Amino acid sequence: MNDLRQIQQRMNDFVAERDWEQFHSPKNLSMALAVEAGELMEHFQWLTEEQSATLPPDKLAEVEQELADILLYLVRIAEQTGLDLPAAVIRKMDLNEKKYPAAQVRGSARKYTEYEQGKTA
Amino acid sequence: MNDLRQIQQRMNDFVAERDWEQFHSPKNLSMALAVEAGELMEHFQWLTEEQSATLPPDKLAEVEQELADILLYLVRIAEQTGLDLPAAVIRKMDLNEKKYPAAQVRGSARKYTEYEQGKTA
Amino acid sequence: MNDLRQIQQRMNDFVAERDWEQFHSPKNLSMALAVEAGELMEHFQWLTEEQSATLPPDKLAEVEQELADILLYLVRIAEQTGLDLPAAVIRKMDLNEKKYPAAQVRGSARKYTEYEQGKTA
Amino acid sequence: MNDLRQIQQRMNDFVAERDWEQFHSPKNLSMALAVEAGELMEHFQWLTEEQSATLPPDKLAEVEQELADILLYLVRIAEQTGLDLPAAVIRKMDLNEKKYPAAQVRGSARKYTEYEQGKTA
Repeated sequence: MNDLRQIQQRMNDFVAERDWEQFHSPKNLSMALAVEAGELMEHFQWLTEEQSATLPPDKLAEVEQELADILLYLVRIAEQTGLDLPAAVIRKMDLNEKKYPAAQVRGSARKYTEYEQGKTA
Repeated sequence: MNDLRQIQQRMNDFVAERDWEQFHSPKNLSMALAVEAGELMEHFQWLTEEQSATLPPDKLAEVEQELADILLYLVRIAEQTGLDLPAAVIRKMDLNEKKYPAAQVRGSARKYTEYEQGKTA
Repeated sequence: MNDLRQIQQRMNDFVAERDWEQFHSPKNLSMALAVEAGELMEHFQWLTEEQSATLPPDKLAEVEQELADILLYLVRIAEQTGLDLPAAVIRKMDLNEKKYPAAQVRGSARKYTEYEQGKTA
Repeated sequence: MNDLRQIQQRMNDFVAERDWEQFHSPKNLSMALAVEAGELMEHFQWLTEEQSATLPPDKLAEVEQELADILLYLVRIAEQTGLDLPAAVIRKMDLNEKKYPAAQVRGSARKYTEYEQGKTA
């Protein structure tokens, strides 16, 4: 299940078989995704950055489930808005590579922050 | 770029070429993902559920970029925690299908809420 | 305990007596506040707007705790950044009242959205 | 404007004069609060914990506005759910003080984490 379109299709079937589309407006799904993002963050909030990179196995297993939940909501939002998630990702990576030439921004925290700000504008 | 592992690899290269791994602790990445989830939600917050499903093209283009950003942070977190995102997604879908048999939960809001609560527990 | 400065002072004492300042960088506190905001939202995510305004007592009691948690983190962030929260709130309300004269924006969804966008810019 | 009830009343008037109650379901307001929490976090996401405690004045001024926005949404949610925010805060602080006796939990990261987990359960 490495393929985004297959994941999206399997989730479509899962939701349709349960008649759960009625709950899946983009508005509701965006809330659900943000709630999961909060749960993911909860695992890291009182850790140092270093600790966050070396979680014990039981914590890692929980983080794994949060990552999966976020991806599942992401493909649901793509479905319900009619957006093509794989195409969106290519476009975004192409854009980022053009906008931030490695030779110019290498290792620069300032450039990184600009990159971030450009990204979210 | 439909394949999650290819996306993850391309992001690895993108980050390495710019020497930006230093910013990418799981803690920081989880914050960045949650910030993007907030930006996604911002497009929907004052809309009705119906309106959220029929966005005008300019709004859709912005939503598309937020979805891409979220996926890009998701593969970064998988990379930095050593978790296998495609495997996690299969496991989660297998689990959900076993836990919520379509015949029993079909169209039930209550079962849906239980499903949700089970999921995040 | 209606007074923001009294709440902030009582929290200062609570944290100091437990030697918990060490966890309370603004970065960490902003994560904790966002996690609580996610938990608040979780109560509403699958409800209609109407349902969200008429919660049953047990749900209301949970929402009440989330609201309190958010306020407690808010005064902690004010403390740790040295910002004056009551003064900030007056300034923001003065600003909003000047920027959105009631006579001009009354009942307008478009003006409301502009107001929102101005606010977050 | 140090008094929560006065802030809540002034926001009630502000919203009523503009006929904006129609947008302020608890569901929508919880999204708006979470969006602001994301904007607050954005200022800190790539900073170290130390840097987050010593922001330059221009950043501090932005953080101040985010804190004010969060408090304003908080009193709106209290209003629209009929909850008494000052009373909720007292109850929560009373609860925390009973649950985490300073003598037992002092300086303990483990106890702190338990405190956190108890809090959000």
